[in-house]
Amino acid sequence: MHIGFIGLGNMGIGMATNLLTAGHTVAAYNRSPAKVGTLVRQGAVAARTVAEACRGEVVQTMLADDDAVEQVTLGPDGIVASLPPGGTHISSSTISVALARRLTAAHAEAGQSYVAAPVFGRPEAAAAARLFVIAAGAPAALDSVAPLFDAIGQRTFVVSEQPYAANLVKLSGNFILATVIESLGEAIALVEKAGVDPLAYVDILTSTLFNAPAYATYGDLIARKNFEPAGFAATLGLKDVRLALQAAEELTVPLPLGSLLRDRFLTLLANGGGQLDWSAITTLAGRDAGL
Amino acid sequence: MHIGFIGLGNMGIGMATNLLTAGHTVAAYNRSPAKVGTLVRQGAVAARTVAEACRGEVVQTMLADDDAVEQVTLGPDGIVASLPPGGTHISSSTISVALARRLTAAHAEAGQSYVAAPVFGRPEAAAAARLFVIAAGAPAALDSVAPLFDAIGQRTFVVSEQPYAANLVKLSGNFILATVIESLGEAIALVEKAGVDPLAYVDILTSTLFNAPAYATYGDLIARKNFEPAGFAATLGLKDVRLALQAAEELTVPLPLGSLLRDRFLTLLANGGGQLDWSAITTLAGRDAGL
Amino acid sequence: MHIGFIGLGNMGIGMATNLLTAGHTVAAYNRSPAKVGTLVRQGAVAARTVAEACRGEVVQTMLADDDAVEQVTLGPDGIVASLPPGGTHISSSTISVALARRLTAAHAEAGQSYVAAPVFGRPEAAAAARLFVIAAGAPAALDSVAPLFDAIGQRTFVVSEQPYAANLVKLSGNFILATVIESLGEAIALVEKAGVDPLAYVDILTSTLFNAPAYATYGDLIARKNFEPAGFAATLGLKDVRLALQAAEELTVPLPLGSLLRDRFLTLLANGGGQLDWSAITTLAGRDAGL
Amino acid sequence: MHIGFIGLGNMGIGMATNLLTAGHTVAAYNRSPAKVGTLVRQGAVAARTVAEACRGEVVQTMLADDDAVEQVTLGPDGIVASLPPGGTHISSSTISVALARRLTAAHAEAGQSYVAAPVFGRPEAAAAARLFVIAAGAPAALDSVAPLFDAIGQRTFVVSEQPYAANLVKLSGNFILATVIESLGEAIALVEKAGVDPLAYVDILTSTLFNAPAYATYGDLIARKNFEPAGFAATLGLKDVRLALQAAEELTVPLPLGSLLRDRFLTLLANGGGQLDWSAITTLAGRDAGL
Repeated sequence: MHIGFIGLGNMGIGMATNLLTAGHTVAAYNRSPAKVGTLVRQGAVAARTVAEACRGEVVQTMLADDDAVEQVTLGPDGIVASLPPGGTHISSSTISVALARRLTAAHAEAGQSYVAAPVFGRPEAAAAARLFVIAAGAPAALDSVAPLFDAIGQRTFVVSEQPYAANLVKLSGNFILATVIESLGEAIALVEKAGVDPLAYVDILTSTLFNAPAYATYGDLIARKNFEPAGFAATLGLKDVRLALQAAEELTVPLPLGSLLRDRFLTLLANGGGQLDWSAITTLAGRDAGL
Repeated sequence: MHIGFIGLGNMGIGMATNLLTAGHTVAAYNRSPAKVGTLVRQGAVAARTVAEACRGEVVQTMLADDDAVEQVTLGPDGIVASLPPGGTHISSSTISVALARRLTAAHAEAGQSYVAAPVFGRPEAAAAARLFVIAAGAPAALDSVAPLFDAIGQRTFVVSEQPYAANLVKLSGNFILATVIESLGEAIALVEKAGVDPLAYVDILTSTLFNAPAYATYGDLIARKNFEPAGFAATLGLKDVRLALQAAEELTVPLPLGSLLRDRFLTLLANGGGQLDWSAITTLAGRDAGL
Repeated sequence: MHIGFIGLGNMGIGMATNLLTAGHTVAAYNRSPAKVGTLVRQGAVAARTVAEACRGEVVQTMLADDDAVEQVTLGPDGIVASLPPGGTHISSSTISVALARRLTAAHAEAGQSYVAAPVFGRPEAAAAARLFVIAAGAPAALDSVAPLFDAIGQRTFVVSEQPYAANLVKLSGNFILATVIESLGEAIALVEKAGVDPLAYVDILTSTLFNAPAYATYGDLIARKNFEPAGFAATLGLKDVRLALQAAEELTVPLPLGSLLRDRFLTLLANGGGQLDWSAITTLAGRDAGL
Repeated sequence: MHIGFIGLGNMGIGMATNLLTAGHTVAAYNRSPAKVGTLVRQGAVAARTVAEACRGEVVQTMLADDDAVEQVTLGPDGIVASLPPGGTHISSSTISVALARRLTAAHAEAGQSYVAAPVFGRPEAAAAARLFVIAAGAPAALDSVAPLFDAIGQRTFVVSEQPYAANLVKLSGNFILATVIESLGEAIALVEKAGVDPLAYVDILTSTLFNAPAYATYGDLIARKNFEPAGFAATLGLKDVRLALQAAEELTVPLPLGSLLRDRFLTLLANGGGQLDWSAITTLAGRDAGL
């Protein structure tokens, strides 16, 4: 297929590369053009503008946040203005439910399809085409782009005909991850104050009840207080928890754990920890325990 | 070794059987003697009293709660009164940190050793000698009973010279499990209100970020609202969260997640759900969301 | 002084009347013009547009929410576009800190002054010129409009040179009121479950430690479960708590009580209680207690 | 009436003095006998033992905590053992609901009456006979001791025939006070970070919506960060919140505000603030906000 790809960050570069590998034609655009070169060397065409990336049947975006996605999609010479009628915009960024709804409406009005396809997986999984794709949108649109999902991921989950539902599922995943982090922080503060070694404790947890990568990865970071450099900064953690809470508020769903996490992130930021890894909220349980 | 074993519930029966299998001599006592017969047919000796179970070098207890352990250990003709000086009491029950400290002191005064060895694992794991043993106590005492731990479990973790620390680690495990349950409840309420199928959602979670048994087991129960019969009743869930909070208070450690969980369990009990599985606290997130 | 007054709701009508009574000239505008007639009969001039209300030295607004204030102020033919340079906009509505900041900047750019003057007091206090005015803005601007504050209120508190700070103080007042309501709800649930009569209990509280009007007013409503008609609807309660939390997030201040209140209001709304008085969140403490 | 009075602390000394003033005969007992002298100079008889204080029709206790009350009442040669059948024990200490129930049963078994009569008011109010008495017990017993309540307080509230209910009401009062403190702490952190002067802010609150002594007293302490010497130590604050939570748990009532307060007090204690005034929990809202 003829695809435009917009957003060549740590995730996007891997995804676009795998689209090339699978035999698709890719016109790549990035705000800072340096990264486009890497992809061109693997066979992509350089798009100098968003509009140039919108000349195929499909354009996929993988951008940092709502602002970036909104500007690229709804701004002058953006995707809605540039994509031909009948074209499909696959949005893989982690964005708010509210924006997902607005984009859905804007594309529909322009006779285009909008598909949400956020992913689970880190940059290494993106590079290895091992992402999990959470897809939502009109069935026909999803069918037509299914080969692209196969090219970038190991499995695709279709969750709804409403694109925003995929964003909600993505946000909920980070929400649960944040609860894992907080629970480890509290449990470690508790046993550490009783003299149990945090690393030995994490070893017990991950050898017994909680042998999932999330527990191993974050348990180790937390036990070692290894929060720099950030794998995922606390400011981004707050952003995702806020997005989850906003989506929940639109749906009138209270999330007490989300409220607690939001307060933790705000506390960390207010005390200068915004650039630390988001698992650094666990230092607060320790500090509150007088450790 | 010559061992007394007190408490032949779902867990104890498997543990005692594996001690026999490993070649140890077991004098078995249970409050209701019917269960002793099963074990006698496998080679155990029936003890008619607690005191009779205390004639060897070691006595192991696996009982329901603080009250039972306190009575058996400190009551008239109990373990402290009956075990010979130099003997060791291995306590595998999930008990409070406060009681663990009192038992440690009482045994020390009587010239006996007290070892805490709570376990992670369900009755099937107990039967298969696949438990994880969390052990704490004086190094010499732990060394002497290490073969017994090998007989009942797949791995032993020594966490401290203070027996109560093992109880704390055990309680913290159930505390984290309860946070897993609550996080699933809130996340499912959120996506369900947006029209996502709960079972499909749990499939996504357990296929991607959270592929641990805890998520699969409880995710399935929660998505199906399958809370009867209880695998672990809400009343016991409240008890364990309370024990964790009490231990945390003794150590002056705030546990905000523990507080939230306590309120959830109280709400469930106040509304008639005490006999449901503890994962039924997730119905509260759904109810609060108007589902 | 020559004043325009925009927004003749339950509060605004009393405030504008008192400005007339104090001898000022008032050009009154309201979206639905019927209410203007009442004021005209007391000596006001009817303004047919926002712009017509902006021909004096000062224009005061008392509107329902951010949207209304934003439209009237920043919209085409709005206050910023219509008020002469050197004029002052007194904003008495309860609005977000974020909007207060934007209005401050917009007026400054237009060579106008922006003063925030939200008030504490109910419609009866507005009618009786007994409001408390929380004022913030440039000192010169505050000095020039001080006689207007004297005309509508019993006392003026100047809190900052930054207008938004007055909005923050106003929001914090409703935040504290909401905590009063929640605390009464939990305490009443507790004693009621022990058989103590709620009304007798409220009598004790207000006769002893808590003899403030807030406790008497809300204690009575809560004890009688008298939530209709709403004095202040739960939807508005949620709005104000949300504004407080948003302001707090901008300032990086966690408000755990605010988080708890937000969850209570969401729960009430999700269960159909949005139009009840905001003190109906107390039914949730009772429901959770199985009452 | 012939009364024994046990416990001559800051509160008890005033209460006993007022019983003398009203013409009653008082046999006074205190653990450290020095304080008895003061009362003897005003006409009391010195009791050398608890038993000696139990020779009249009524004995009233005003002690520090559960342990003291339990020992004096149920210990060897305690009140239950010493008071004649038909006698009445008036317990004015702030104790747990659980202990109140045990004392009720013990006195009933001994043919004695047990009346709970905790009070609201500080030592000055006790000295001035201006206490508020929260009374509960069998109607006949309450009638017979009503003159004693009149002698020590300005008003008596009868809340139940079950003595423990009066203790619950008392505990709930301190619970609400603690929520007032926390709400002030969060609100002050919020406005202070926006540059509003805390003292000016408290002046606004207490001049407008919250003109109750609790807000004035604690608002001033909090704004000035004046936590030493403690009027009521944080350790005692934690004790009372814990008692409220325990009573609520017995009645199966969740108290989310109580949970939040408990975590605040634990945090303060873990960071060395146990001897500060309980209003010092408000430093935590400020600290979390990075102030």
